[in-house]
Amino acid sequence: MASDSPVFIGVDLGATKIVAAALAMDPGKEGVGEVLSQVKGKTPRTAKAKDIVAAIAEAAKSALASAGKPCAGLGIAIPGPLDRAKGLVRYTPNLGLENYPLAQELSAALGMPVVLENDVQAGVLGELVGGALRGCRNAVGVFIGTGIGGGIVINGELYRGSTGSAGEVGHMILMEGGPVCGCGNYGCLEALASRTAMAKDALALAASGKAPAMLDAAGTDFRKYRSSAFEEALEGGDEAVGGVVDRAGFWLGVGLANIVNLLNPEAVVVGGGVTARFGKRLLKAARASMEDRLMTGLAATVRIVQSELGDLAVPTGAAIAARRDLEARRPAGAKEKSAR
Amino acid sequence: MASDSPVFIGVDLGATKIVAAALAMDPGKEGVGEVLSQVKGKTPRTAKAKDIVAAIAEAAKSALASAGKPCAGLGIAIPGPLDRAKGLVRYTPNLGLENYPLAQELSAALGMPVVLENDVQAGVLGELVGGALRGCRNAVGVFIGTGIGGGIVINGELYRGSTGSAGEVGHMILMEGGPVCGCGNYGCLEALASRTAMAKDALALAASGKAPAMLDAAGTDFRKYRSSAFEEALEGGDEAVGGVVDRAGFWLGVGLANIVNLLNPEAVVVGGGVTARFGKRLLKAARASMEDRLMTGLAATVRIVQSELGDLAVPTGAAIAARRDLEARRPAGAKEKSAR
Repeated sequence: MASDSPVFIGVDLGATKIVAAALAMDPGKEGVGEVLSQVKGKTPRTAKAKDIVAAIAEAAKSALASAGKPCAGLGIAIPGPLDRAKGLVRYTPNLGLENYPLAQELSAALGMPVVLENDVQAGVLGELVGGALRGCRNAVGVFIGTGIGGGIVINGELYRGSTGSAGEVGHMILMEGGPVCGCGNYGCLEALASRTAMAKDALALAASGKAPAMLDAAGTDFRKYRSSAFEEALEGGDEAVGGVVDRAGFWLGVGLANIVNLLNPEAVVVGGGVTARFGKRLLKAARASMEDRLMTGLAATVRIVQSELGDLAVPTGAAIAARRDLEARRPAGAKEKSAR
Repeated sequence: MASDSPVFIGVDLGATKIVAAALAMDPGKEGVGEVLSQVKGKTPRTAKAKDIVAAIAEAAKSALASAGKPCAGLGIAIPGPLDRAKGLVRYTPNLGLENYPLAQELSAALGMPVVLENDVQAGVLGELVGGALRGCRNAVGVFIGTGIGGGIVINGELYRGSTGSAGEVGHMILMEGGPVCGCGNYGCLEALASRTAMAKDALALAASGKAPAMLDAAGTDFRKYRSSAFEEALEGGDEAVGGVVDRAGFWLGVGLANIVNLLNPEAVVVGGGVTARFGKRLLKAARASMEDRLMTGLAATVRIVQSELGDLAVPTGAAIAARRDLEARRPAGAKEKSAR
């Protein structure tokens, strides 16, 4: 890659952490580019917008300083709905931002153009351009964490739906009347296969003495039932926790069957912290229950794959979104400009 | 419409009946055109391909004779998977056609070009071009009969998926472990909201004396539990049968919630014989359960509407598919040709 490739910053604004990456993107070709630097910071717990802006700006500056190059623009991925055209964050369940002009504020703080993207859409875009979905025309991304989010690729492009909210795979009801979901419904995929769903079962098993390694790793505090604790419990030989993972995989497979029967994609990428830690076991169970439920002949047409970009999927997709958006704004033939 | 508009024949090949319509389509503009004639025939019960070809040819000739005009081509809608490019019927669960070159055989019998289309896709195309989905960019069609089929519109075009099988809304699992479905799975939308699903419940109620009007209309013969019998039972005051319809509507609404949360369409059209007979009651129940389950704000973005073309949706879509296909084959600038 040419050393004068424009640099874009991609930021993943999470409820607990901020990940910023600087990527050098060859102007002549599509792709994720070269990761020049990656910085992690904490999301301030104050719920004050200006503290969040300051923390993002600090992470971005730090990623840029490590990269040592001027920057063409920044893309930031938001955990919630937004107005892309206006650069407005609509609301964020866990961050306290509401109808907030984040693009404008951050652009003023950093002196560079800023583009907003939804975090799950950014993750799918990252995998599409430079990860597990590279080259796909029709595909789906499913990201498993506290909740389950998703994104749809149709004809090689992110499909956003008629009002920008397409891709809610997590709230597909698989068992009407089943366990309660964060959305208020019952039996959604998210209520059956998210890390939160697994944590509920694993905690009950640990508390009743059936998962001693889990009890060692996380005690009985629900908040400690993170992916790393599950990994420890599995390594520690908790068969009951293995069963919880298999059960989540079973339900993930039911959800995948619905998605594949409906959309006939060539691939589904499964990402998020859970898959990075014990994705192999989860996906094995998911593939089995999916294949049991697919229409005749469909199983051979679809690949179920793990995320290739992992933690970098979202910041990479955010940087790509920024690059695309800024290139679309520039008059044809105009030269790429860089601002420090 | 100009009296010299080219005429296309659209045929709906069903398991029990064949519907053929002749449509005059103004060459200058997209649209369903003018219905010149409509003919119904019986599908032969012999399961011999040549008898089926003869019956289709007879219906098409009869429709053409009534129309009194030369014909540019014929589109035929098939209840099963097909190879459009080769004009091959892959298989038809209820007709006995398997890997059969229907386009070629029918073209030889009629002396005109023949194009195949899937029946549900044809129905969605008909509603999109000239029915309830006119003008939609992103929409879904759900057709309720013995089973439940569907089709997806993305960016104003039928979305077929990576291997041509997209749109299987009927086999979306809503209640894993629920009632058995014709596909072999349990708890699919089709097993909960098709006419077959309603018939199972209504028959049990009639047999146990709780639905006297239904018993009068259809006895205890499962095959007689058709849409017309349901209509008679509802008119006859069978509250229990009304409950069966409301229950099917409830499940239809759960399925619609999944579809709308996933695809964020601007409209969903619901068609098929069931909706023609008692669609108002069914859709009222469906809208209520859907709205209970949609993500915040989505209910206001989507219209749930009944088919406008009814019985003519499928033949109309087949004729449109024929017209499009034949226009795409013709070199640009060549004149429209007609053959008798």
